[in-house]
Amino acid sequence: MGDYGIGVDLGGTNLRVAAVDEDGTMLLKRELPTEVSRGRDEVIGELCRAAQAVVHDMRERSGGGELRGIGVGVPGLIDSESGRLLESPNLPGWNDYDVKGEIERRLGTTVILENDANAAALGELWLGAGRGSESLCMYTLGTGVGGGLVLQGRIWRGWNGMAGELGHCNVEPEGHRCGCGSWGCLEQYASATAVVRMAREALESSVQTALRSLAGGLSSQAVYECAMQGDAEAKRVFERVGRSLGMAIADMVNTLNLPLYVIGGGVSSAWDAFAPAMFAEVRRRSFVYAGTTAENGGGVGGRARTTQIRRALLGGDGGLYGAARLPMLGAGA
Amino acid sequence: MGDYGIGVDLGGTNLRVAAVDEDGTMLLKRELPTEVSRGRDEVIGELCRAAQAVVHDMRERSGGGELRGIGVGVPGLIDSESGRLLESPNLPGWNDYDVKGEIERRLGTTVILENDANAAALGELWLGAGRGSESLCMYTLGTGVGGGLVLQGRIWRGWNGMAGELGHCNVEPEGHRCGCGSWGCLEQYASATAVVRMAREALESSVQTALRSLAGGLSSQAVYECAMQGDAEAKRVFERVGRSLGMAIADMVNTLNLPLYVIGGGVSSAWDAFAPAMFAEVRRRSFVYAGTTAENGGGVGGRARTTQIRRALLGGDGGLYGAARLPMLGAGA
Repeated sequence: MGDYGIGVDLGGTNLRVAAVDEDGTMLLKRELPTEVSRGRDEVIGELCRAAQAVVHDMRERSGGGELRGIGVGVPGLIDSESGRLLESPNLPGWNDYDVKGEIERRLGTTVILENDANAAALGELWLGAGRGSESLCMYTLGTGVGGGLVLQGRIWRGWNGMAGELGHCNVEPEGHRCGCGSWGCLEQYASATAVVRMAREALESSVQTALRSLAGGLSSQAVYECAMQGDAEAKRVFERVGRSLGMAIADMVNTLNLPLYVIGGGVSSAWDAFAPAMFAEVRRRSFVYAGTTAENGGGVGGRARTTQIRRALLGGDGGLYGAARLPMLGAGA
Repeated sequence: MGDYGIGVDLGGTNLRVAAVDEDGTMLLKRELPTEVSRGRDEVIGELCRAAQAVVHDMRERSGGGELRGIGVGVPGLIDSESGRLLESPNLPGWNDYDVKGEIERRLGTTVILENDANAAALGELWLGAGRGSESLCMYTLGTGVGGGLVLQGRIWRGWNGMAGELGHCNVEPEGHRCGCGSWGCLEQYASATAVVRMAREALESSVQTALRSLAGGLSSQAVYECAMQGDAEAKRVFERVGRSLGMAIADMVNTLNLPLYVIGGGVSSAWDAFAPAMFAEVRRRSFVYAGTTAENGGGVGGRARTTQIRRALLGGDGGLYGAARLPMLGAGA
């Protein structure tokens, strides 16, 4: 067994800590609820105790390698220079909190703080849909839409850590109001929240739809099931998800010309319902994509060089693997 | 005098060749018309003769440094691996032409081929609006809208050289048809061609406008002058330019979080007419931008860290400087 990293995924609902070795094997995992209501001090305390317990258990193991470091994924905007969490809708009361400093102080060791969607992108590159790729762009479709860019093996954070806010790319200039202050962001058409809202809008305007039977039980998953059973309104909702994703991805293809775009998060399980519209839209919008897909013979030179759009493979563990990977990449990871 | 690079800017109208030393001083420049009608073979011949003449003249100079290499900027899509020009609206008949190989064969030396908008972005980073910056995103508003990304000092080409097609980011999902096959690309609202089209549309729908006096002489510059003289329709045209640019830039700010966005090309001389709408739109659309501008105290931590949007400084020479810079950056520039 080689050396290992500790990955922490601090979500609004669950707090998970894992030890992952350099080959990408998860050796230990602890999971507990994030008791947000007890305050950030208590949550950070739990996080540190869980991390210490994992380190302790690893030491007990015969032949355990050395701890390379600790990576922590958190939902929200991070100022990369100071390590402060600037804003986090899922962690109310944590705004402008020195998460990195606080954990370091309690554990007595350096930690690397990272946006959770960035960590998931790194995880997918390392062990998931992006294995073997150098760069990728990942969309995490959850309550909101997170994003992560990995360029040449490294998370692209931008000049102060705010890069990768792919959920706030515009897909409808004067569309639905977004929590970020803009209108018509991708997040308003491709998140679980958006699926439920669009289903509700369909209910209000359509008489005949199986969505009506869901009544108060509207969820992204339930809408997906209606779509799979052939309900036209539910299908339309996911076509909208797909078209919106396709528009956003087309812009990224034209801008960054990456080899791979990965779709993860809860809503990605509805792939069958939204992917056809997504692919059609990317093809319609991006001449770069059209010129580098398998359909037309693999682009220039006859080689099989194709721009890929794939589902994430690591599910909810992507962020955990990515966080554990961070200390293995050394300074400036 | 230090060593120098040769920069070539091969445009659809003019062919320019310059020697630029490592401090960014232009030592020699030759300019001649691009005789596209005489065929690509003839144009490449002219290009090579001009480059040889510049090298010859530099050798004559006492104290002349060593030639570091030759960079060539061309308008169009380049396959970075093969060096072939895949597509170039301004160089008809050059599609899928091995420009790099052809020049190398005639000059007997390695050349670096680059998209002209990418070269301009590199030039601005080196000696213009981006001096002292590590990364920038540049929009070149000409007949079309070109784009260039420089990330950490290097042109970002993507995995096969097609990155930076910023003119084809979407700003109006079902808007004006674009030559790329999509609808509502930035190029359809922020290029000189778009300014003229939008002015014509205004003429068709409005009775009172000074644009009418331009009659057959509609040009981007003439529309700008009408706007500066207070004509409401002409002003609206440039507000549309500004809003469209602002939307595209907001997406880039949210995605890449670069410190600097530069606007160049002929239409950028209408800055006064479009910049207010552009800034307003970026502020309206990007919480990342709003959080990192001077207006609100310089962002987090009280330091003066601001996301900047500026006019290009090198005018038509940006691409020439950038092309000359390429060989100075060494392999993988």
